[in-house]
Amino acid sequence: MHQSIRDIEKLFFQYVNKMKHYEEALALIGWDLRTGAPKKGVEQRSEVIGSLSEDVFKMTIADELKDYIDALTDEGVQKELSEVTKRSVEVCKKRYEQNINIPANEYKDYIILQSKAESVWEEAKKNSDFSMLQPYLEKLVAFKKRMVEYWGHDKNKYNALLDLYEPGVTVETIDRVFGQLREHIVPLVKAIGTTAQPEASFLTVPFSKQQQRDFSVWMLKEMGYDFSAGRLDETAHPFQISINPGDVRVTTHYDEQDFRPAIFGTIHEGGHALYEQNISKDLIGTPLCEGTSMGIHESQSLFFENFIGRSRPFWEHYYGAFQKAAHGAFDHIGLDAFYRATNLSQPSFIRIHADELTYPLHIIVRYEIEKALFDGDLQVKDLPGVWNDKMESYLGIRPQNDSEGVLQDIHWSGGDFGYFPSYALGYIYAAQFQHIMLRDLPNFDSLLQQGNMKPIRLWLSEQIHQYGALKKPMQIVQDVTGEALNAQYLIDYLNKKYRDIYNLH
Amino acid sequence: MHQSIRDIEKLFFQYVNKMKHYEEALALIGWDLRTGAPKKGVEQRSEVIGSLSEDVFKMTIADELKDYIDALTDEGVQKELSEVTKRSVEVCKKRYEQNINIPANEYKDYIILQSKAESVWEEAKKNSDFSMLQPYLEKLVAFKKRMVEYWGHDKNKYNALLDLYEPGVTVETIDRVFGQLREHIVPLVKAIGTTAQPEASFLTVPFSKQQQRDFSVWMLKEMGYDFSAGRLDETAHPFQISINPGDVRVTTHYDEQDFRPAIFGTIHEGGHALYEQNISKDLIGTPLCEGTSMGIHESQSLFFENFIGRSRPFWEHYYGAFQKAAHGAFDHIGLDAFYRATNLSQPSFIRIHADELTYPLHIIVRYEIEKALFDGDLQVKDLPGVWNDKMESYLGIRPQNDSEGVLQDIHWSGGDFGYFPSYALGYIYAAQFQHIMLRDLPNFDSLLQQGNMKPIRLWLSEQIHQYGALKKPMQIVQDVTGEALNAQYLIDYLNKKYRDIYNLH
Repeated sequence: MHQSIRDIEKLFFQYVNKMKHYEEALALIGWDLRTGAPKKGVEQRSEVIGSLSEDVFKMTIADELKDYIDALTDEGVQKELSEVTKRSVEVCKKRYEQNINIPANEYKDYIILQSKAESVWEEAKKNSDFSMLQPYLEKLVAFKKRMVEYWGHDKNKYNALLDLYEPGVTVETIDRVFGQLREHIVPLVKAIGTTAQPEASFLTVPFSKQQQRDFSVWMLKEMGYDFSAGRLDETAHPFQISINPGDVRVTTHYDEQDFRPAIFGTIHEGGHALYEQNISKDLIGTPLCEGTSMGIHESQSLFFENFIGRSRPFWEHYYGAFQKAAHGAFDHIGLDAFYRATNLSQPSFIRIHADELTYPLHIIVRYEIEKALFDGDLQVKDLPGVWNDKMESYLGIRPQNDSEGVLQDIHWSGGDFGYFPSYALGYIYAAQFQHIMLRDLPNFDSLLQQGNMKPIRLWLSEQIHQYGALKKPMQIVQDVTGEALNAQYLIDYLNKKYRDIYNLH
Repeated sequence: MHQSIRDIEKLFFQYVNKMKHYEEALALIGWDLRTGAPKKGVEQRSEVIGSLSEDVFKMTIADELKDYIDALTDEGVQKELSEVTKRSVEVCKKRYEQNINIPANEYKDYIILQSKAESVWEEAKKNSDFSMLQPYLEKLVAFKKRMVEYWGHDKNKYNALLDLYEPGVTVETIDRVFGQLREHIVPLVKAIGTTAQPEASFLTVPFSKQQQRDFSVWMLKEMGYDFSAGRLDETAHPFQISINPGDVRVTTHYDEQDFRPAIFGTIHEGGHALYEQNISKDLIGTPLCEGTSMGIHESQSLFFENFIGRSRPFWEHYYGAFQKAAHGAFDHIGLDAFYRATNLSQPSFIRIHADELTYPLHIIVRYEIEKALFDGDLQVKDLPGVWNDKMESYLGIRPQNDSEGVLQDIHWSGGDFGYFPSYALGYIYAAQFQHIMLRDLPNFDSLLQQGNMKPIRLWLSEQIHQYGALKKPMQIVQDVTGEALNAQYLIDYLNKKYRDIYNLH
């Protein structure tokens, strides 16, 4: 009996590995499509994606896998298994139960609908015409609502969707922390609105792609990114992708009139990549060898982008090198002016261009709408109005058209409901982590002033990265901080930083 | 009955397409590995390759495929099928019969042996020590000999290996044409050896990567390469790869002290790519949507590299643009000196650095050795001596060590016996094609002098490219030229060109 369980365990991991092989091919195809794949090859490439995705999907619900899961979740057996095996089985079981309950024909229709809706969205956004997208969104919402019924749900139906991206995080928790955030950020944003903005026009000066690229590569190395296990490429929208544990790639975007997208984008994606590059080697070959959730991932990228890369001590060290990389374009700009300009906060319509302070409000708008769609009585047709009302109420500005309003993001037309909250959860996690890090590394600021990010990176790897998906997000927060999710640390951080920049003491 | 055959035909092509999806993923992985994939990801990437290759292999010998093949090769049915379907079935049937006869365990051992032998080869080459590789080569030859027995063979066993790369071409044919070549090239090489070499040291001047890249991109466009269905990247060894019919990529190598590898390499790979980009769209989704053989492929790359790219009329048009691209480095060099220098011929040890005239002799050495290994009594242990003797006899130079001799190529340690002849067959095809092209386009030289390659490319597409693998190599030669394989045209071309360059009239 004992031997036989070890055999099943081995077969289970072999099976999981085979699935991972398809996923690795799919990841590479995804990277390639976004980094210069010729456009005439895209249509056939889509068929390849469909084919390999179908293989993966079938494997997630195969009888063979079910047999392994049943054998390895047997009560008598569980105590003989390692944490890694137990959690691996749990992850596969969850995916099995999610997928087995989707009727095959409905799923196929959904994939077609999704792909159609994404291209309609592009048109609708271009024409700023929500009515074009509305019928598609209605079908997508209806489909997701049926899925929630198939999967089963607790008291709030929206929880089933949240769980896809942030396992274990519920409406109850998010209502609490987003409520805290809203309550404190809205007045701060209003206060800033009544003060003078710092001068920032000097930021938009010519800065060649080659110079930005060289600085980006150097910065990634400074952060501890391992180029022998990754590479940096150029794309319209920066992203990080893990093709396998030894191949964790990042991209960035170069604007030759504005260095900010490239430099802050590189640091952000670098933060994601450090997470993936520092997962314990013991988890290779298991389904746990990846970031545990969207939110924890975002906590790592935002930690590097904002808590490090937009901090004054960081630029105290790096501003000289930056000035050199810019070939004189910033030689007449002092550090303080540079720091204030790169941290300018101002309400704006577009989420992906929002600053650190107003960003969470963009997420809260989306969260409240999704919740009302799935567990309230909000209708798809009413989205534009509700969107604009909430923007006005929280950010004090009202979109003049749907293109700068409800149509700006691709997520909903891709059926990704429940995803947005993770962005703001990542901020909250990051601030909570920093609070503890400052206790363990009280010299945090002086480390940055010395350009020594290594102890910070090691702390994050030790506390977070190494575990991959072995721990769920809430368990990581609890283990690292000794408390549950708490937005107060982010509020304190934002208050301190922005009251200082805008002299609001 | 009629309807049912159409159904089977449809299912057969669906099946083939699914196989092609795995092959497309594999092609992309192969491209990625050679264009900068991080080295720490390679080991796991190899497992993915193994996994997808196994899927393809299993599909080539599956009962489902066998049923389609049996149904579609039924005599009564054949007359109802299009040429495309019949030839598609024929290709799959051939692959089925090849693979079904390989015992699974032997094949697995072979894959391991092959991979091991390739890494031993690297070491052996570095140490110039044939004895390191010898036991691996012996096993590889023994395996291939067993395969030949499994597959069955006609009077010459080596034919079974030739057929893998150049379907329908036999020892009988190659003996005849290589004999012709040897007989005429050896004396020409000797005659050149007694004359003065043109000055060529001016070719190796600084030429930046960016300048070479810009010129390479422009040259590909001049040739008619479609960048919306391809891309150009940098690699140590240039290659062309078709990922799908709308995604045909090329790479080149930049040496900042010598423009020749990049420029001639780009034109060569561009020639391969034009073949793949101009296959009839009617063949998409069939196994025929690819070059029909290694040799016909090489005829297209060599046609562009040598018959166009190393011709005087070509440079009469492009030398000005080239001088501009080189930012003055060639301004003091006349066209005639440049033309002679880039066509310098001199016996050398390394095949991949050989010039146009001596190259076929390098191939003949390898062909004669392979033939003697598989259908004669040559033993692996005797390879170095035989190699050196043949080099001395045909090229007049004797390698001083195995690294510049029998160990220089990777092919044999990868088990690729029968591949080399295709390189020289490509030359012969190219010269035969040009002979006919000159009849159809008597203004060939003046087209090049005008920088107008379009009529030439259209002729090649019309005569060769469009057919993909619908026609076998010998059928293409027969259809285009109206005769069988004939080396006389290559001999005439080489005699004329080199006697002119070296004043040997």
